[in-house]
Amino acid sequence: MSDIGITVKKSEDFSEWYTQVILKSELADYAPVKGCMIFREHSYAIWEKIQEIFNAKIKRTGHRNVYFPMFIPESFLKKEAEHFQGFIPQVAWVTVGGDSQLEEKLAIRPTSETIMYSTYAKWIRSWRDLPIKLNQWNSVVRWETESTRLFLRTREFLWQEGHTAHATKEEADQEVKEILDAYKDVIENYLAVPVLIGKKTEREKFAGALYTTALEAMMPDGKALQMGTSHQLGQNFSKVFNIKFLDKNEKERYVWQTSWGFSTRMIGAMVMLHGDDKGLMLPPKVAPIQVVIIPIPYKGVDAKVIQSRAREIHERLQKSTISVVLDDRAEYTPGWKFNAWELKGVPIRIEIGPRDVKKKQVTLARRDTSERIALKEDDVVNEVTKLLEEIQSNLFNRAKKSLEESIATVETYDEFKEIFRKKGGFIRACWCSNSACEEKIKDETGATIRTVPLEKEKIFSKCVYCGEEAKEVVYFAKAY
Amino acid sequence: MSDIGITVKKSEDFSEWYTQVILKSELADYAPVKGCMIFREHSYAIWEKIQEIFNAKIKRTGHRNVYFPMFIPESFLKKEAEHFQGFIPQVAWVTVGGDSQLEEKLAIRPTSETIMYSTYAKWIRSWRDLPIKLNQWNSVVRWETESTRLFLRTREFLWQEGHTAHATKEEADQEVKEILDAYKDVIENYLAVPVLIGKKTEREKFAGALYTTALEAMMPDGKALQMGTSHQLGQNFSKVFNIKFLDKNEKERYVWQTSWGFSTRMIGAMVMLHGDDKGLMLPPKVAPIQVVIIPIPYKGVDAKVIQSRAREIHERLQKSTISVVLDDRAEYTPGWKFNAWELKGVPIRIEIGPRDVKKKQVTLARRDTSERIALKEDDVVNEVTKLLEEIQSNLFNRAKKSLEESIATVETYDEFKEIFRKKGGFIRACWCSNSACEEKIKDETGATIRTVPLEKEKIFSKCVYCGEEAKEVVYFAKAY
Repeated sequence: MSDIGITVKKSEDFSEWYTQVILKSELADYAPVKGCMIFREHSYAIWEKIQEIFNAKIKRTGHRNVYFPMFIPESFLKKEAEHFQGFIPQVAWVTVGGDSQLEEKLAIRPTSETIMYSTYAKWIRSWRDLPIKLNQWNSVVRWETESTRLFLRTREFLWQEGHTAHATKEEADQEVKEILDAYKDVIENYLAVPVLIGKKTEREKFAGALYTTALEAMMPDGKALQMGTSHQLGQNFSKVFNIKFLDKNEKERYVWQTSWGFSTRMIGAMVMLHGDDKGLMLPPKVAPIQVVIIPIPYKGVDAKVIQSRAREIHERLQKSTISVVLDDRAEYTPGWKFNAWELKGVPIRIEIGPRDVKKKQVTLARRDTSERIALKEDDVVNEVTKLLEEIQSNLFNRAKKSLEESIATVETYDEFKEIFRKKGGFIRACWCSNSACEEKIKDETGATIRTVPLEKEKIFSKCVYCGEEAKEVVYFAKAY
Repeated sequence: MSDIGITVKKSEDFSEWYTQVILKSELADYAPVKGCMIFREHSYAIWEKIQEIFNAKIKRTGHRNVYFPMFIPESFLKKEAEHFQGFIPQVAWVTVGGDSQLEEKLAIRPTSETIMYSTYAKWIRSWRDLPIKLNQWNSVVRWETESTRLFLRTREFLWQEGHTAHATKEEADQEVKEILDAYKDVIENYLAVPVLIGKKTEREKFAGALYTTALEAMMPDGKALQMGTSHQLGQNFSKVFNIKFLDKNEKERYVWQTSWGFSTRMIGAMVMLHGDDKGLMLPPKVAPIQVVIIPIPYKGVDAKVIQSRAREIHERLQKSTISVVLDDRAEYTPGWKFNAWELKGVPIRIEIGPRDVKKKQVTLARRDTSERIALKEDDVVNEVTKLLEEIQSNLFNRAKKSLEESIATVETYDEFKEIFRKKGGFIRACWCSNSACEEKIKDETGATIRTVPLEKEKIFSKCVYCGEEAKEVVYFAKAY
């Protein structure tokens, strides 16, 4: 058994625990090419679920999916100076195609603003062509030099990137907000990861944006993880790429734009937040397999009877919308199977043994609480359906409680440093809005402002660093 | 109107017609980076339908989706000599990451055999780990030097690539066949593109395969277009990448492998085959929009009554599984809308005008036959459902007839050359199985053997080139 189980405790060596959970549950693997990872079927199926959920939401609100090339000429990236500075240290360059050196080297997209907007300029002529609301699912490349962390830091990762163009600032503001809400729904109600939502400071915003909004989750090691961002780009890119339209009064105007994205790193957050010493723990709404049935042949009842009962239950659940697997492999023992499926994070296990057959019942085991429940066979579909919902809420509520407990409100910099050193987490403090203070706090503690709440919170002290008048209540943390 | 319509006839300038249809129907556009294209929402939605259909099929038969990195170290590509020779002239190379020159240059995947199989070697230990049946949806890069043809020849394109490993040759053979059948179903029954199916000759097979099977369609300009391939890789790659397993007798064996793929070029085939002088014509089963409703306000009936009737019909169709759009934009005339939606290939148009309102009917127009049909309002869901099926069959049957008419059986090389020069198409002829004859025919006429039928056809002459004993009946054509 030991070869498949996790050999360290989450509470003792979080980083090693995280890597073991991912590798041993077969979510992912290191790739044979440096800095890259392989999304194995177990994590890719979760990503497909996320795609399905998010696609349905954004298509309902008039967005459409497209695919733009992965190559971006260097000159395009250079057009918006701030954007270029932001991405250039991390770009992978294609310099040779077939036998020939390229005249202009090509970046592999770190993000697609420049390649898409140069084309938007061609497509948009009149107010009739607006809004444009496009999204792509693709992979992007950022040439990380630090060591790989599966899902969190790899040179290539999967994401979606939305890019919209609107006639007015108000419409673009509204789009930023609409997407933020959609992200919140996916992250909290499906991945069961609670988040703080707010704006980024000037220092932390996206390179080239007017402002950036983001969703931040808190990990068990006290560090914040950004789950998604939604940017109001203003007219920064439209002026550079010359994206103009004739309004209803035949007047030429620049469009207002937004871009927004989330990536496979959200799977990493889900692993860290819900997993335990037995392995993964998947929220039922994104679990590729929600229920596993394990027949337990044992003396007293004919093994064939147990098998056929297991198949019956399997069929019954299959006919509902529940995703279920019957593990009747003869080459593994029930004990081995229990561990293997717990490791993979399947929310509910159904055991069918001699006693269950005799009593016309099944035994359920919850992955989240380890609770075991005996159930009449006839109730199985209804009860499993209810239980899946309950597990989903339980995971979220547990995580919500620890998010709330991670927030420490401080009035002085000494308190800030002490609490932050001890346990990390979010430090809620007042700030004068001056970048210098933000910068110094970062240099001295490693904490950055993760989020400035959208609805201003009531000022309760002077600026935590300089002692001048405070303008905002903000949330600091060390970031992943 | 003229600015949105196609300005050449399909029969007069096929190549220009093809480009205009794609650009004007907004299926796709040229990218601002050389040799690349943009998959706009109209074609990407078709691709999403194809993904949905194919995913359902392969998941039912135990395949799973994954994602491997886009980067392949040069040393990996070099491991299988034949494979390397086949792809090396077309590879795009990343040589710089961030600020530094890479130690080993990285290919952007032209296909993923080498990167995947080096990992399969790590994952596979015992017969219990087999079969492995994985698939990826991604983009691949082949550095074409000829000029771009949208969907048919671009430096980056979208595809799926399946990669399986099995314990025995028989299982791998069966996998090749199973996928070929799945491809046939997608291509014929959804895209309505009829195909010839068979093996490739040694000269035409995939670089590194034992044998290659393929599906070939015939385009209106007399050239064949390969719609998908399914390869038996034998143990070529497993020996190179050392993919071994212990069988049930604890004996070490190399796995047998298959790989298979189809790409977005199949959308190009669909455009060429079904389109007409008015634009695209989409088979209902892959049409993102199956029905468009156009209210026709005109004297005699209050415009509001017509609008509300149109909305009613819209809602009724929406509640069914039919994909429907109500085009009630005030800024365009009904005539303009008719042309615009015909250009986009929507299978059925529903008109609601004063006469329709008075008679409690709607008027249907079929995109495939231009036929107009008056229909009782109450029958609309049933009748539209039936008509969509009829249009689907009609498109396939028309194409099937022209595929059959494109095949010319010849006994002599003179006949071969004359017919081939006149009209292209498939030339059905007997062949001695000697590569030299195949090579000479290609040099002299440009025709290659597209397919060798899986079930041998009856020999009816000597080899069409050398006059020696024939071994096979084969199908020649000029290939896209």
